[in-house]
Amino acid sequence: MEFQYENSYEVKEKITSSSIAILPVGAVEAHGPHLPLGTDNLLAERVAQRVADKVEAFVLPTLPYGQVWSLRHFPGSINVSNESLISIIVDIGESLYRQGFRTFAMVNGHLGNQPALKDAARVLFTSCPNMKVFYFFYPGMNQAAKEVRETDSAHATYFHACEIETSYMLYLAPEFVDMSKAIKDIPQIPEDADVTPTPWEVFTESAVLGDATLATMEKGQYIIDIAISNMVHMLTNKEAK
Amino acid sequence: MEFQYENSYEVKEKITSSSIAILPVGAVEAHGPHLPLGTDNLLAERVAQRVADKVEAFVLPTLPYGQVWSLRHFPGSINVSNESLISIIVDIGESLYRQGFRTFAMVNGHLGNQPALKDAARVLFTSCPNMKVFYFFYPGMNQAAKEVRETDSAHATYFHACEIETSYMLYLAPEFVDMSKAIKDIPQIPEDADVTPTPWEVFTESAVLGDATLATMEKGQYIIDIAISNMVHMLTNKEAK
Amino acid sequence: MEFQYENSYEVKEKITSSSIAILPVGAVEAHGPHLPLGTDNLLAERVAQRVADKVEAFVLPTLPYGQVWSLRHFPGSINVSNESLISIIVDIGESLYRQGFRTFAMVNGHLGNQPALKDAARVLFTSCPNMKVFYFFYPGMNQAAKEVRETDSAHATYFHACEIETSYMLYLAPEFVDMSKAIKDIPQIPEDADVTPTPWEVFTESAVLGDATLATMEKGQYIIDIAISNMVHMLTNKEAK
Amino acid sequence: MEFQYENSYEVKEKITSSSIAILPVGAVEAHGPHLPLGTDNLLAERVAQRVADKVEAFVLPTLPYGQVWSLRHFPGSINVSNESLISIIVDIGESLYRQGFRTFAMVNGHLGNQPALKDAARVLFTSCPNMKVFYFFYPGMNQAAKEVRETDSAHATYFHACEIETSYMLYLAPEFVDMSKAIKDIPQIPEDADVTPTPWEVFTESAVLGDATLATMEKGQYIIDIAISNMVHMLTNKEAK
Amino acid sequence: MEFQYENSYEVKEKITSSSIAILPVGAVEAHGPHLPLGTDNLLAERVAQRVADKVEAFVLPTLPYGQVWSLRHFPGSINVSNESLISIIVDIGESLYRQGFRTFAMVNGHLGNQPALKDAARVLFTSCPNMKVFYFFYPGMNQAAKEVRETDSAHATYFHACEIETSYMLYLAPEFVDMSKAIKDIPQIPEDADVTPTPWEVFTESAVLGDATLATMEKGQYIIDIAISNMVHMLTNKEAK
Amino acid sequence: MEFQYENSYEVKEKITSSSIAILPVGAVEAHGPHLPLGTDNLLAERVAQRVADKVEAFVLPTLPYGQVWSLRHFPGSINVSNESLISIIVDIGESLYRQGFRTFAMVNGHLGNQPALKDAARVLFTSCPNMKVFYFFYPGMNQAAKEVRETDSAHATYFHACEIETSYMLYLAPEFVDMSKAIKDIPQIPEDADVTPTPWEVFTESAVLGDATLATMEKGQYIIDIAISNMVHMLTNKEAK
Repeated sequence: MEFQYENSYEVKEKITSSSIAILPVGAVEAHGPHLPLGTDNLLAERVAQRVADKVEAFVLPTLPYGQVWSLRHFPGSINVSNESLISIIVDIGESLYRQGFRTFAMVNGHLGNQPALKDAARVLFTSCPNMKVFYFFYPGMNQAAKEVRETDSAHATYFHACEIETSYMLYLAPEFVDMSKAIKDIPQIPEDADVTPTPWEVFTESAVLGDATLATMEKGQYIIDIAISNMVHMLTNKEAK
Repeated sequence: MEFQYENSYEVKEKITSSSIAILPVGAVEAHGPHLPLGTDNLLAERVAQRVADKVEAFVLPTLPYGQVWSLRHFPGSINVSNESLISIIVDIGESLYRQGFRTFAMVNGHLGNQPALKDAARVLFTSCPNMKVFYFFYPGMNQAAKEVRETDSAHATYFHACEIETSYMLYLAPEFVDMSKAIKDIPQIPEDADVTPTPWEVFTESAVLGDATLATMEKGQYIIDIAISNMVHMLTNKEAK
Repeated sequence: MEFQYENSYEVKEKITSSSIAILPVGAVEAHGPHLPLGTDNLLAERVAQRVADKVEAFVLPTLPYGQVWSLRHFPGSINVSNESLISIIVDIGESLYRQGFRTFAMVNGHLGNQPALKDAARVLFTSCPNMKVFYFFYPGMNQAAKEVRETDSAHATYFHACEIETSYMLYLAPEFVDMSKAIKDIPQIPEDADVTPTPWEVFTESAVLGDATLATMEKGQYIIDIAISNMVHMLTNKEAK
Repeated sequence: MEFQYENSYEVKEKITSSSIAILPVGAVEAHGPHLPLGTDNLLAERVAQRVADKVEAFVLPTLPYGQVWSLRHFPGSINVSNESLISIIVDIGESLYRQGFRTFAMVNGHLGNQPALKDAARVLFTSCPNMKVFYFFYPGMNQAAKEVRETDSAHATYFHACEIETSYMLYLAPEFVDMSKAIKDIPQIPEDADVTPTPWEVFTESAVLGDATLATMEKGQYIIDIAISNMVHMLTNKEAK
Repeated sequence: MEFQYENSYEVKEKITSSSIAILPVGAVEAHGPHLPLGTDNLLAERVAQRVADKVEAFVLPTLPYGQVWSLRHFPGSINVSNESLISIIVDIGESLYRQGFRTFAMVNGHLGNQPALKDAARVLFTSCPNMKVFYFFYPGMNQAAKEVRETDSAHATYFHACEIETSYMLYLAPEFVDMSKAIKDIPQIPEDADVTPTPWEVFTESAVLGDATLATMEKGQYIIDIAISNMVHMLTNKEAK
Repeated sequence: MEFQYENSYEVKEKITSSSIAILPVGAVEAHGPHLPLGTDNLLAERVAQRVADKVEAFVLPTLPYGQVWSLRHFPGSINVSNESLISIIVDIGESLYRQGFRTFAMVNGHLGNQPALKDAARVLFTSCPNMKVFYFFYPGMNQAAKEVRETDSAHATYFHACEIETSYMLYLAPEFVDMSKAIKDIPQIPEDADVTPTPWEVFTESAVLGDATLATMEKGQYIIDIAISNMVHMLTNKEAK
């Protein structure tokens, strides 16, 4: 159910204490030659939609701007600060709480947003008693990706426009992928990249962290379906705080 | 052109000093029984798209949350603060500036956003020299609406889910209008509503400020086309500050 | 009654739940060759005094600095930010509330302050339950001015150092007007001035938006008396929120 | 010279790099039964005026609200936070700097404002190179008061509505003093009042810290003239940073 | 070299562009029955000291308060916000930069501080050009711990007062460990603990995440020496940004 | 009792409503050729320890960074803003309150911190009802110092690295004093130093405000013991707010 297509008269009784509001959060960010700038928005939206279908949740309009500090100098990237993200998400969460929601799930398509989403969730934990707030980023994907990937991961936690993320897109939004432009570009990430601010232009020109040519719909399906299943499980098994 | 469907490689040379970036800004807010909560998002997006087509601009992903203080207690409304709005818009504007844009136009579908957009534009005026920043809200609509409306306006500046706004929707997003539910509900707005904080539940239960049953696609078209024409004119005649 | 000339011992019992506190808010801003920089302070103070006399209210000391972004580069203008204005007014309002006031009326002499005063009023709406907060800017003046003005208005909402404002001064503070220096200087305001940040030096050197030579005490009296009457009406008819 | 009574045309050339802008800063605060709430405003204004006359400075409109945390629960007190004070004073100082002033002197009538004024001055020290910023609070008064007072001081640094401050008023604003109501009320200030937050209602009901009946115009004149002389000396001997 | 034991006269020439300033950052937080509240401070300090000895760096006084949101309700925990941490670290970093340092390394003993340290480092990345800022948290420990641990990790990234951290203490600060009180308490961490705010009292009473009885000095030495070696390597191989 | 060496299990019952938490607050700041940069940290810590021994209080880890604006350009000084200090101290105080403390005493070794500590104490006064918050800076030292000093004070309130502070160090931390480097350097402090921002490099190169060669352990002991006695007295005589 798309929340914004509801009308005010009917939505009132549809919002009960067991209602779930899902907010897709993405970003506008460089994703190499074969994927669009809005990749993270498309993924967040479509994952959110599938989760919502399974748990009968409302999907809110996507928050389409994220914290892309690392790639902010790449063509097309639009960066918003952690402070801005936290502030607007807290506002949204508090409105949902006043509207009667007791479960608010952010479905995030961009890793760089996680710290802000976590901080926002903690603020809401205090200001909205008894509202459960989730900040999902493909839960379970690390293990699942390990099972299907054919190349080593370029980095312990980052993945970007690579075999994995391109596979997600082939599964969820193939009309926006141009595999003919997909490249293999495995960067040499500096060993201190995790412990000192490191804009990605230092180690990649393409913003592709791996071999996008190996992406397949099946790999995407395998991982995404596990992530969706995990989200559904946590949303339906949740208990009061 | 949808900005987020571009890819990073090609967008680089498409962004020149004459490029225009258009940001639709809307809201999720009660709009009576016949219009969806996302009315202002739909209108902002579709107006933005038409303007973009005429001036060959990029349309950015819609910022779909607005300041809806007055209607925040109505079912379905999601309110964000002026501070949050200003903060995220300034971030977006500064990113666009660094990306090379010198014209940034907000196409706003929700009157309550205007003070925040104006403040954000003033911040950008200082931080982004030579970038022209617009905050459009149906320019010229007051005069045009006067010409076509069959009922008096309920208020000098507000219009909401009424003959006028419903007409906009019939023109731009008719698939989201249910005219069978349209009502006439002309409120008695307190005479001090402009000079003291006045949540709308004080004077309306429906959030419809007028007679929505009189809405027609033609009225919407008349006003919207004038507004679009005015925006196109200002975007193409603009000069450096 | 001037609040600051009361003493602490006697003021205590004079403050009851029906007491009204009036805060004049003005600005220091260029007003052409014939009006002083403090024009908006003088007007706010004297209007406040007259209103207070009719409703037996306390007049607080004038807050004499306002948001004059548009004219901040003109000689003599002193600009303070919306943030500063909001912050100090919220402090004042919360103090008045703790002192026992349940009606707090800002009488504003400078249009540019209105957004900040409105925002401050909304903050107080939440933090001070049952306190009615007004932010008056010559209520009813638009209609009244239309009736007496001999020249067209230069702009739909701005008026400045012109036929109208000079008439206010001739009525309320004639000793500060030098009509021998009054000029006619009708600017060509850019058509996009309402939708993009536009410092007034772009379209006027004098800061006079019209024909000040046509100002008369009588015109001022006509409009101001209507505005005062409207304020008195709203202050005395007000009911609890 | 009252700055706000100047007009924009003439003030331009009156502002040179040797011009001095003086801002009186006061407060609205309980001052016992014999002095008005606005005592600190009256003193700041009239001292500022005398200093201005001697150094040919501009006097700005008084900032009439101060930080009165200690007395905020007394009838009539209006408290504003350090943050609000600092913010508006920094705005004012930066405007004066852009207008061409290179000396900005705050003449403060309320001790509780000093920390905020000092902090604001430090901000301006960085943002306005070569502008000298003073925050005066009766410089030299401690020594001078010791010479004329007939009773011991109730506290090392506080004095309030007592022999000393009442004498200031008898010299500078006698029309606002009602000596027939003056009282002697020497409080027992807790020994930890300087090292733990201590609202004054803990140790005084009157807010008079001493024997106001001993106040005389002559005592006030003696101290104030020394303070004025010290300010004049510092304003005229000042050199570039 | 302890920075604070230097004197101002001699330190001046000791600070060159190749000087390194190391800031230990810890926390006061519950660490079970056998470890002190200041465990993270002790570890940060002693690791910092060893690194400093190897690279001839200055060790700054420890910042002994951290963000311990998850354990804030446990006896003895003192929690400071991310905002406070970021603010004071940015101040410290900017001071070091003005003093001439071009390498600033935070040696952190508390995982919960990492997001704040990373954000602070990014702020400094912009405000202090050419200063390299590190935020170290036992680099390389994950792999090394895997090699020596005898029990499974209770969580992918958390470790606390367990086999591992107790081993660190046995190596670096054995005089503060009371192994006679060490316990085994392997918690059942909820599967959604990484995606929803989860104070640790939800799943543990002891705050021990594992089997502390298996801790040995040798395990601590093995991991810590690797971490120190990694830090030394990155500090000495670093190049200008 | 060092708070951070307690463990979580035992500390729980040690914290009662009569428990006292003492926070030493110092600074890293130039102190001439004979005293270390961390002089204020050493003094704060050791005074705190002695006070704690007498009143059976917990000593928290030292907050070792202070506001040293005046000396921030001297070699070795590390300056943090009032905002940062206030923010972290409020966090610490609120944590202590939640842990059960009802007395929180800051023992400050650096005069420049006093305004921030006072402001933090006022915030806590409101947010932590019934918690008594002290901000001590050698209470009673002014009188005591007058009795023992052999040279005049260079300034009414400042003392720094001089006869007095060096005596404190000789008493409390003699191992960090190098009297062979002690100098006499009596500055000519500008007469406006108290009323305009005045970095100390304007009037001293050494940062020594007086004759450090006259310092003795006995002078330090005399003053410090009085200050400690005063703190003990206030901590033990305190009553509920």
